[in-house]
Amino acid sequence: MLIDIALDALGSDKAPEPEIRGAILACRALPVRVHLIGPEAELRDVLDEHLENEDLPIVIHHASERIGMEEKAAHAVRTKRDSSIRVGLRLVREGKAAGFVTAGNTGAAMATAKMVLGALPGVDRPALATPMPSSTGNPCVLLDVGANVDCKAHNLEQFAVMGEMYARTVLKINEPRVGLLSIGEEETKGNDLTREAYPLLKALPIKFIGNVEGRDIFSGLADVIVCDGFVGNVALKTSEGVGRFVRDVLRESLTRTVTAQVGALLSRRAFNDFRQRLDYREYGGAPLLGVRGVCIIGHGSSNDRAIFNGIRVAYEFAKGGTVERIEREFAGHAKRNAVRPDAGQDDKADTASIQ
Amino acid sequence: MLIDIALDALGSDKAPEPEIRGAILACRALPVRVHLIGPEAELRDVLDEHLENEDLPIVIHHASERIGMEEKAAHAVRTKRDSSIRVGLRLVREGKAAGFVTAGNTGAAMATAKMVLGALPGVDRPALATPMPSSTGNPCVLLDVGANVDCKAHNLEQFAVMGEMYARTVLKINEPRVGLLSIGEEETKGNDLTREAYPLLKALPIKFIGNVEGRDIFSGLADVIVCDGFVGNVALKTSEGVGRFVRDVLRESLTRTVTAQVGALLSRRAFNDFRQRLDYREYGGAPLLGVRGVCIIGHGSSNDRAIFNGIRVAYEFAKGGTVERIEREFAGHAKRNAVRPDAGQDDKADTASIQ
Repeated sequence: MLIDIALDALGSDKAPEPEIRGAILACRALPVRVHLIGPEAELRDVLDEHLENEDLPIVIHHASERIGMEEKAAHAVRTKRDSSIRVGLRLVREGKAAGFVTAGNTGAAMATAKMVLGALPGVDRPALATPMPSSTGNPCVLLDVGANVDCKAHNLEQFAVMGEMYARTVLKINEPRVGLLSIGEEETKGNDLTREAYPLLKALPIKFIGNVEGRDIFSGLADVIVCDGFVGNVALKTSEGVGRFVRDVLRESLTRTVTAQVGALLSRRAFNDFRQRLDYREYGGAPLLGVRGVCIIGHGSSNDRAIFNGIRVAYEFAKGGTVERIEREFAGHAKRNAVRPDAGQDDKADTASIQ
Repeated sequence: MLIDIALDALGSDKAPEPEIRGAILACRALPVRVHLIGPEAELRDVLDEHLENEDLPIVIHHASERIGMEEKAAHAVRTKRDSSIRVGLRLVREGKAAGFVTAGNTGAAMATAKMVLGALPGVDRPALATPMPSSTGNPCVLLDVGANVDCKAHNLEQFAVMGEMYARTVLKINEPRVGLLSIGEEETKGNDLTREAYPLLKALPIKFIGNVEGRDIFSGLADVIVCDGFVGNVALKTSEGVGRFVRDVLRESLTRTVTAQVGALLSRRAFNDFRQRLDYREYGGAPLLGVRGVCIIGHGSSNDRAIFNGIRVAYEFAKGGTVERIEREFAGHAKRNAVRPDAGQDDKADTASIQ
């Protein structure tokens, strides 16, 4: 049986080309039916061009409006009621699609998902989780990376629960190691927020490894790293900045002399390999965790391979029942705490704030 | 006339070798007299070995204790009263040295500097400022990177004033562009702290360019970027982590096939150039701004070149009168505001908090 995935065909910077090609790749490789969301006539033309008589489970759902990358999320969400993002997320809410994928305006996608799908019971704030490349080859999940600034300790606690479940069910990491992003290993290091969050994370039934530092996002020390959305966004964009800087400097150095140019030519395959391992696109976008449904948000510069990976991640979410498992996890916490109303001095009592 | 610089000879991971070699490099290149701080007999032996009958203005000041990298700063500062850090900073307080340089325990150096030198009048919290490499070749000063977590808006305002003065007098940047680290360009983007700090920075007599993002640390968009110490430390360590990750992955890719190895060999000079431009050590350590004196804190992994650059930066601080200029700047703010006690509705009034 095919799993239905809704895909925003107007998301990426070069939409709809990468979306349509990514959908084709996905339908060839995975048991999915892709619902392309966008202006029907236009999409039909481009799709027909690419399909070359191949019969793939791709259907088109009409949406008349596009939310641009530079549009203010709040305004766009309010005024564009027939945007491809909104139409796609409605398919998820109505059960017609098991997940939604977009490479469009991140703010608008998050706001629309919260509005159309709503938060899971017990989740105060959904969080955007980004898989980052690491030395070990396994990605490290960083969350939140921008959905929530000015968090409370119990928000970080909830992020830990959701991030751990994502790492387990989608990234297939057995017993994910969860760290708290801070500025020193000791429990006492950090700011008010991390010092307050530390004991809450420690009390959770997860493999909490304590505080980790910025450099550990890439060291392979942790599988999941939790932080507030401001700090996470700064860390994410800083690492993008370093990555770009390194590429620029290396390119410049390698074209300065003829010898270096020959060297660069001979090591071209190595550079491609290098680039691929640094490429965030291989990980298929960031899931918005904690909403009632699967919503995967990719980078605006997504190519067909990135869109394919976004669809793959949405498919893995649906197959792994990740959302349902997060929901049960929160219900479980609520129940455990309800059964022991006087558990105030108990380790587990800290999780009460998850309700 | 020579400028006296005190150098912690027990600071770096491989001390005292890099310190002694760095001191020799500095004395050859700059009009400085270096005061090596550490166990006299031991330093004398190592120094004699390296000097080879050369007559350089290097003197030794005895200090019997070393604060290790892993020691808790608060405890070490309290108990080790004859540490090389404390003895060196005392020379600065007594006017026997124009600056102090250490590659030792950052926390201990900051705490000791605050205690021994004290803060400048009007400065609530000294800040650690790190020059970061950028695409344009000019460094970008990031502050605070760890001295202060949980800042208030007026702390960020003071960091902006101090960072701007450092960029102007030591890095010789004319009209430095100052940005506020946030998660979006618009004034309304960010967390409570940045939204509150924005109008304060805007009201300062500096070239404030508004909010900048993590990626702009390396893009060359700003010369000075201001943030609280928690966020700055995460950004700094994240970029160190990416840098290390990139090197590891590149090395691995380049040794995988013989062709790639030959390529790497041919482009060796390009790689060295690349490495050097990424190397934080070239910038000579991070000054602690806002204390009554010059205190430069380098990385524990400093080599002789890094120590040399640390001494060079301390020399530039002393020569440029940076500390005195920061002091005058704060006194000026205080005076401007005192003259207009009712300037509450005025733009400049925001700087009152600098007092």
